[in-house]
Amino acid sequence: MEIWQQLRAMGEEFTPTSIQATHKLFAPLALTPAQAGAVVQRNLAYGADPRHRLDVFHGPLAAPRPVVVFVHGGGFVGGDKGGADAPFYNNVGAWAVRSGFVGVTMTYRLAPSAVWPAGATDVGAAVGWLQANIARFGGDATRIVLVGQSAGATHVAGYLAGHGGTSDARPEVMAAALLSGFYEPDAFHVDPMQETYFGSDRGRYPAQSTVLALAASTVPCLFTISEFDLPLFHAQLAAVFAARVAMRGRSPQLLYLHGHNHFSSSLQLGSAIDSLGPALVSLAQATQG
Amino acid sequence: MEIWQQLRAMGEEFTPTSIQATHKLFAPLALTPAQAGAVVQRNLAYGADPRHRLDVFHGPLAAPRPVVVFVHGGGFVGGDKGGADAPFYNNVGAWAVRSGFVGVTMTYRLAPSAVWPAGATDVGAAVGWLQANIARFGGDATRIVLVGQSAGATHVAGYLAGHGGTSDARPEVMAAALLSGFYEPDAFHVDPMQETYFGSDRGRYPAQSTVLALAASTVPCLFTISEFDLPLFHAQLAAVFAARVAMRGRSPQLLYLHGHNHFSSSLQLGSAIDSLGPALVSLAQATQG
Repeated sequence: MEIWQQLRAMGEEFTPTSIQATHKLFAPLALTPAQAGAVVQRNLAYGADPRHRLDVFHGPLAAPRPVVVFVHGGGFVGGDKGGADAPFYNNVGAWAVRSGFVGVTMTYRLAPSAVWPAGATDVGAAVGWLQANIARFGGDATRIVLVGQSAGATHVAGYLAGHGGTSDARPEVMAAALLSGFYEPDAFHVDPMQETYFGSDRGRYPAQSTVLALAASTVPCLFTISEFDLPLFHAQLAAVFAARVAMRGRSPQLLYLHGHNHFSSSLQLGSAIDSLGPALVSLAQATQG
Repeated sequence: MEIWQQLRAMGEEFTPTSIQATHKLFAPLALTPAQAGAVVQRNLAYGADPRHRLDVFHGPLAAPRPVVVFVHGGGFVGGDKGGADAPFYNNVGAWAVRSGFVGVTMTYRLAPSAVWPAGATDVGAAVGWLQANIARFGGDATRIVLVGQSAGATHVAGYLAGHGGTSDARPEVMAAALLSGFYEPDAFHVDPMQETYFGSDRGRYPAQSTVLALAASTVPCLFTISEFDLPLFHAQLAAVFAARVAMRGRSPQLLYLHGHNHFSSSLQLGSAIDSLGPALVSLAQATQG
């Protein structure tokens, strides 16, 4: 299939050009809210900052449904949930509705103006807002599933680890999916993107890591890695894998995404070639048990 | 579904009772050679020992097809390919034919009479026999895919690592799948089963490990782990995962088998609830590219 050849040809390329090219490959396949019969409430404020915004996608109001919240990537300094006309991440909201969930896409504050743990704090604030408000859109506030990609996965992990602030209780979500995440700043690797969010004080890196919290977490977590992810993302998952096995005697739940790159994992959601959606459906449905 | 509840109730139990119970759960679902339209040639000798036997499953002879070879588990001291009336592992041969392959199930010599690296040697001998003979059953000797479970995965890994003896060249197989494998004897863990095959001389353990060879291998390998595998199998995969990331900068290809235990991973092949077969089909078909 043409799209797989083009992804393979791009390989691990991690540039604005490769992001745009990947978006272009998947845009024609993107499921739209209209196709899913989704009603969308856009730019609801879950906090005071202009980036504290979320879109809610829902179908006809019926029995309360699990709520799937997507937290976009963008290297801590960029990215967006997308507007009404953007294919992404309206695809995620549309996919959620088609799958029987309420969908949410959210933005959060960005570095360098908002640094660690702002992302985790914002995920926590959005969860709090959803707990108070999602019922009127048909969502079940007791069954929230977080899905974060790249920096979004970092922020979901930070929230699960309690880095967001107030709560040291069990996070009030039922499950999480972490796509090509960055789980701890790496003192061996000089990375401007990492320093922009986590800072350059390596003495703080151990406390900023989410690896041990993810290993210990009782919240079911699904981790994905893409075949053409940069080695650093494979190494990040290896750290979680080793810690989870050491601490719990078992592997994390994993999904290896053949043929995908760092960006395409979430762009495929809802498309005809979606290899992630079914795993997320299983994860979210398991929260009903 | 009833079967999943029963597997979950058994959990990690690793006893003759749990093996029998797992077989009993899957036997009614087992695909038969007759259902797959497979012709079976049984107990072909690939060597001098009575355990040097393999069964070949094939459909109508046509263009040469990939050959999928199943190497059973049994803790190094037991297990069998099964006879004509056994549901297992006729299911594997039947699944292979239904999937467009030639299927092979093989036995090998057992410990304590045959110790390391006898299993790897036997896998190599079977591969050699297939290279010379499989064409007359419609198989393509240049497209052999090895599938090993538990001790069978150990032996496939040993073959890939060149422990079988003669060849230090690239193994003459196109791909391998390793299900809940045991990749290196563990000096931290006293395990009679391990010692029966690898011996008790811990000084030899590093040379008997297949972890670094698997990490370095250019043969595409798919690793599976079952949710209810014992912690030691999760730890074995963690070692491969870490080594692969360190050596190649990328994760191994992984399939996490939700709801499965150590034994059910291969018993499900060809059944209506088979979550492994499609991944093996992808692996084998990729060898055609």
